[in-house]
Amino acid sequence: MAQQLAIGVDLGGTTVKTGLINSDGKVLALSKLPTRADENPEAVIEQIKKSISEVLMHAKGAPVAGIGIGAPGLIENPGGIVRSAPNIKNWDVVPLADIISKEFKLRVEVDNDANVAAVAEAKFGAGKEHPNFLFIIWGTGVGGGIIMDNHIYRGPSGGAGEVGHISVNYEGLMCNCGTRGCVEAYVGQKYLSKRTIEKLKTAPNSKILQFAGGDESKIEPMHLSKAAEAGDQLAKDILVEAGTLLGVMIGAVMNTLDFRVTVIGGGVSAVGDFVYDAIRQSAMRNVQKPLRDGIKILRAKLGNDAGMLGAAGMIL
Amino acid sequence: MAQQLAIGVDLGGTTVKTGLINSDGKVLALSKLPTRADENPEAVIEQIKKSISEVLMHAKGAPVAGIGIGAPGLIENPGGIVRSAPNIKNWDVVPLADIISKEFKLRVEVDNDANVAAVAEAKFGAGKEHPNFLFIIWGTGVGGGIIMDNHIYRGPSGGAGEVGHISVNYEGLMCNCGTRGCVEAYVGQKYLSKRTIEKLKTAPNSKILQFAGGDESKIEPMHLSKAAEAGDQLAKDILVEAGTLLGVMIGAVMNTLDFRVTVIGGGVSAVGDFVYDAIRQSAMRNVQKPLRDGIKILRAKLGNDAGMLGAAGMIL
Repeated sequence: MAQQLAIGVDLGGTTVKTGLINSDGKVLALSKLPTRADENPEAVIEQIKKSISEVLMHAKGAPVAGIGIGAPGLIENPGGIVRSAPNIKNWDVVPLADIISKEFKLRVEVDNDANVAAVAEAKFGAGKEHPNFLFIIWGTGVGGGIIMDNHIYRGPSGGAGEVGHISVNYEGLMCNCGTRGCVEAYVGQKYLSKRTIEKLKTAPNSKILQFAGGDESKIEPMHLSKAAEAGDQLAKDILVEAGTLLGVMIGAVMNTLDFRVTVIGGGVSAVGDFVYDAIRQSAMRNVQKPLRDGIKILRAKLGNDAGMLGAAGMIL
Repeated sequence: MAQQLAIGVDLGGTTVKTGLINSDGKVLALSKLPTRADENPEAVIEQIKKSISEVLMHAKGAPVAGIGIGAPGLIENPGGIVRSAPNIKNWDVVPLADIISKEFKLRVEVDNDANVAAVAEAKFGAGKEHPNFLFIIWGTGVGGGIIMDNHIYRGPSGGAGEVGHISVNYEGLMCNCGTRGCVEAYVGQKYLSKRTIEKLKTAPNSKILQFAGGDESKIEPMHLSKAAEAGDQLAKDILVEAGTLLGVMIGAVMNTLDFRVTVIGGGVSAVGDFVYDAIRQSAMRNVQKPLRDGIKILRAKLGNDAGMLGAAGMIL
């Protein structure tokens, strides 16, 4: 099949990163501009248009199939309307797909960060061989996207895959969202750091603090992972527990959808293999028997480019 | 549109119930035969064929679009292979769709009880107006089916919708399946009866036992519901707790799929409206905010005919 071209836009809080991408996921041209998030939506839209124009030049007249945009906040689909994007000033309800489509006379798809990253892994990354998988962004919070039959599943109003707010314990911790026991309230980065600081009070011999440069306010999951790999029991316990709880949520989704495969990306996903073992074992325990053998927990393959590649991937 | 005809077969442990059904869900002819489940699969298949032949005669030569079969056990789809059906002797792996299709030269679809009942509610019952909903069978256990965009969603291997084994508490009760905290282990009929018997020891003034004819081994959820409606606090507490936990699981599924609507059938679903209120409140608490307003918990409308109607519904 001849190579197709598409433009992928990763709209971040500080940078608009835009690429001209081909069907193999190769970046043929790249533009990085400041988002101007502290000004107003008009300024941000101006930056998006500018970055698209910049990479579009490099197509040198070859046909471009469309423009994909990964954006923060709640995205209403169909429609590609971006609602209340966090970190962008005064961004309330912006019909982004419409605005960009009118400007460039091209097909435009807009989706949230997690869905776009899921598409990236499906087309170019760890999910390439798997037509059905759950993608998880494990970072400050826990987000997700569902790849069903090789396509992103958005649900009737574009909100599917919000797996971070699945409760793993109805009597559990109170989450910011008002629900008890959301898995995000247990395994999100902030929670892990906070819990570590608490536990350190009763484990003065733990090496965790050394890995965080002696400053407990700087503790991140990667410090836990390194400490654990250096033999620190507390660090290991905290991360294995986190993996186990993530596995409970994964089990819920696998049971619902009859899926086997989960791909995990996001800042925390770089933790050591022992965490993935814990996730896998827990997910296997938490699915109906016929699914157990097939359970796979994979690391995402695409790092910082996932947003841009996945945005283009919605078109390609 | 002209009326279509299809045959629906409800294969139960004691009775094969087969109907000639039109697109409105009207039963034009009905056959009930003993399943002969204590003999062998051949005998059971003979009964299925016989019942189909009986109702087929009433089509009087009008074209029949196909045959749908609702069967117990694990169904492998695509393929319509029925594995290890409980309650049928020596039933191991039977390619039922193939066998029946060869006999009658008609399209045949086979699915499990829960999925077939979900289709019945989607086509003819409480889900008629809702293109996307979760169907729950609340009985001895907790089963489910997913209607997505007006069709049954079976998943890659036919196992989707097994929502009874979603854990609502990772530290919770041990379920028969080996998982901790499956919602089935809390709200299945057997558990509810057992829990009631335990609690009655410390609540000698409860009226529950009266409603069960004075025999605690006969206590069923409907006795709890009647006692609760007669003002019995213990009965009310047990059912409200069950509804609350069912709502936690419903929240997990709604978050995953971006659904709003749940339809509940099965033996326990006849409990009073106060239980539905508890389910609804809990489901609303357990979904992400944008979904909360739309949450609907509906009673299934089709009773004992759901299996037969839904089986035909897979064809119509």
